[in-house]
Amino acid sequence: MVEPKTLAGFMELLPADQIQFNRFLDIIRKNFEKFGFLPIDTPVLEISEVLLAKAGGETDKQIYSFKKGDGELCMRFDLTVPLAKYVAKNLNQLNFPFLRYQIGKVYRGERPQKGRFREFYQCDIDVIGKGLLDIKYDALVPSVMYNIFKEMNIGDFCISVSNRKILFGFLNYIGLNEKSQEILRLIDKYKKIDKENFIATMSELNIADENIQKIIDFITISGDKWEKIEKLKSLNIQDETYKEGVSELEQVIKLMSTFGVGGKFFDVDLLIARGLDYYTGTVYETELVGYESLGSICSGGRYDNLAGYYTNEKLPGIGMSIGLTRLFVKLKENDILAKESGAISSAIILPMGDTLTECIKLSNTLRENDINCEVYLQDVKFKHKISYAGKSGIKYAILVGEDEVNNGEYSIKNLIDGSQQKLGPKQLIEFLKN
Amino acid sequence: MVEPKTLAGFMELLPADQIQFNRFLDIIRKNFEKFGFLPIDTPVLEISEVLLAKAGGETDKQIYSFKKGDGELCMRFDLTVPLAKYVAKNLNQLNFPFLRYQIGKVYRGERPQKGRFREFYQCDIDVIGKGLLDIKYDALVPSVMYNIFKEMNIGDFCISVSNRKILFGFLNYIGLNEKSQEILRLIDKYKKIDKENFIATMSELNIADENIQKIIDFITISGDKWEKIEKLKSLNIQDETYKEGVSELEQVIKLMSTFGVGGKFFDVDLLIARGLDYYTGTVYETELVGYESLGSICSGGRYDNLAGYYTNEKLPGIGMSIGLTRLFVKLKENDILAKESGAISSAIILPMGDTLTECIKLSNTLRENDINCEVYLQDVKFKHKISYAGKSGIKYAILVGEDEVNNGEYSIKNLIDGSQQKLGPKQLIEFLKN
Repeated sequence: MVEPKTLAGFMELLPADQIQFNRFLDIIRKNFEKFGFLPIDTPVLEISEVLLAKAGGETDKQIYSFKKGDGELCMRFDLTVPLAKYVAKNLNQLNFPFLRYQIGKVYRGERPQKGRFREFYQCDIDVIGKGLLDIKYDALVPSVMYNIFKEMNIGDFCISVSNRKILFGFLNYIGLNEKSQEILRLIDKYKKIDKENFIATMSELNIADENIQKIIDFITISGDKWEKIEKLKSLNIQDETYKEGVSELEQVIKLMSTFGVGGKFFDVDLLIARGLDYYTGTVYETELVGYESLGSICSGGRYDNLAGYYTNEKLPGIGMSIGLTRLFVKLKENDILAKESGAISSAIILPMGDTLTECIKLSNTLRENDINCEVYLQDVKFKHKISYAGKSGIKYAILVGEDEVNNGEYSIKNLIDGSQQKLGPKQLIEFLKN
Repeated sequence: MVEPKTLAGFMELLPADQIQFNRFLDIIRKNFEKFGFLPIDTPVLEISEVLLAKAGGETDKQIYSFKKGDGELCMRFDLTVPLAKYVAKNLNQLNFPFLRYQIGKVYRGERPQKGRFREFYQCDIDVIGKGLLDIKYDALVPSVMYNIFKEMNIGDFCISVSNRKILFGFLNYIGLNEKSQEILRLIDKYKKIDKENFIATMSELNIADENIQKIIDFITISGDKWEKIEKLKSLNIQDETYKEGVSELEQVIKLMSTFGVGGKFFDVDLLIARGLDYYTGTVYETELVGYESLGSICSGGRYDNLAGYYTNEKLPGIGMSIGLTRLFVKLKENDILAKESGAISSAIILPMGDTLTECIKLSNTLRENDINCEVYLQDVKFKHKISYAGKSGIKYAILVGEDEVNNGEYSIKNLIDGSQQKLGPKQLIEFLKN
């Protein structure tokens, strides 16, 4: 006998939770498609040489890789590198700008620890241009995400937007061009470490106190998003990159409004810098209001070149990603999820006496009317049938005895409040549809 | 520069095909849920000791396994063993009979060859009983599959049903009890090898010519399903297993009719024996009429004990599985798939002149009405916009110039037949909804 256990760091839900998780997946996919993003589904396994063309450093250790047959294979650790491969491979068959979504599991072989997953769902959208990609797509992408989080109904959230060009331009203007990548990585951590720590670490980089203060004043600029943009414009910083960044940010913010993103659901935040050098312009992070400690639940940004390791074609892109596994578990832990029934069926039909044929025929009719339903088929005492129905989470039981068959009326029992009523077939369909 | 290639034996579709593939996945899932099956989603990676508790022989070589950290891991090669683990692990939290579905990718590290996949989707339903599971569930499972293939609209198909108890009982009755597993494996191949070959191989098993003839007469019994059952009953074979098998088969066939399975879509076929010793009663295979050479597109059966390697609890089950990747590729190759647009959006909105704001607002309105649509956001000449729209497969382009904005009417161009008309906002929504 072997103990039936699941690997640590791998989420495996009971059916009621799985139904709720799938409902989120459905909301995400539906909204991706509403905005015209096209699905792709790349393999979980790739040739190591291909998938790791770019990777290095920290990521390397976290990759599940192994030899099989004549090659070295590895499991994908994100959906971005597979996208790069896919686009480079299918360059002539795709329509650019290419709006793609992918929802799938990715793998990180890290040590298991609380809140970390080794298998988790990523839900990504990216728009890839060939040569050029208009800044307007930088407003489209967070607008899609806004619609998703609204529909998920998990409380207030805020999509923070910035543009790395603003920071790069500003740092260049105050003469810190050479240290800008390091400084951006520190700014990215500003919220987590405190101000003293930030100053101390900046000093270690040999940055003059005067400049440290300038940087802090700059990144903590106050006001609402429109005021911040006006302030950024009025600072009179003579740097082309800076000006480009401010102009891009302004366009993105304005267009997000046009896309219908509610005013309180997005903001300008210069503290958003993102750790990855990869990003070159717009950057985003998303926090749940009141649960900021969860960290960003949806992030992303603009990059200059998606697939430089695979093709000479220049492919700029903009994307965002939801790490749904982690988000779902955090929502559960913090009791933010609405209580749901955890049932797939609207009704369960319980035969009483010799009515099986009628029960099955009734179930056929309900399904023809797009009502999910189950017929209980075990030949057991009625108390066992009603006990099964009670545990199932299904709201309504339809009791079908010989009397019901003869009278053409069914007894409908609400399994939550215990109430019961009799309905004819047509009424029953109407009732269950509502 | 690295060549962006995908592993052989791994399906990776272009978006238009992916959309069609996803439509099939949706049909499968929707019907699984219509019949009340609950979703589960087990990890792709499992602990080797757990996943391979039962496996052996041929399968072993095909498993992707590797060491990581302190353990030996492997990728799932089907969804049945993970189900066994899941049920044994969650025995006290599940409601029995447990109706579960799982749709996911599985992995077989075999040599790549035409028509074989190393990563492919399986779409499984199983009903698991605790202690006992009524034979009626053996009629439910193929009835679900019937609804799926009907909705897929891939032509006529036939679900063939048999019951291994009938063959075991018959072989016992003619004194071949000890060789029954080998004989069933041969019967399973009867259609592929010819009759002479079958006889020759049976002779090698030292089966008397007289008995070989009896077996052939028995398994090729003629008539429609009802006639076959009557013949089986009238053969007067005094064997309890045989009688049980015939009675079960009759119940299953009758109830499949009650579940609404059309008469020409299922049959009794004693040649269906299934190769696996695992199955103990009802067995199924499904063929596409006119494309029998594709082999079975949906198979399964009844087993006595799902999880004997993990628990002492006896867990009988009945299940069927669709190998969607292989089916999809075969349908494509044989041109059986209906031509589809391969588009996610119903319409693409093309700004002409300075109408971007209006275009985005129109897209918001369409989406609020559940219409998938894309706004083209690149700042390029109109001919490039219309070229993008033409390649996209999207049926309608909505042209929004300043005239259109002023007149409150939009030009709708049918990109397939080139026709064009003007519609106001409300008419437009109605038009696109139909």
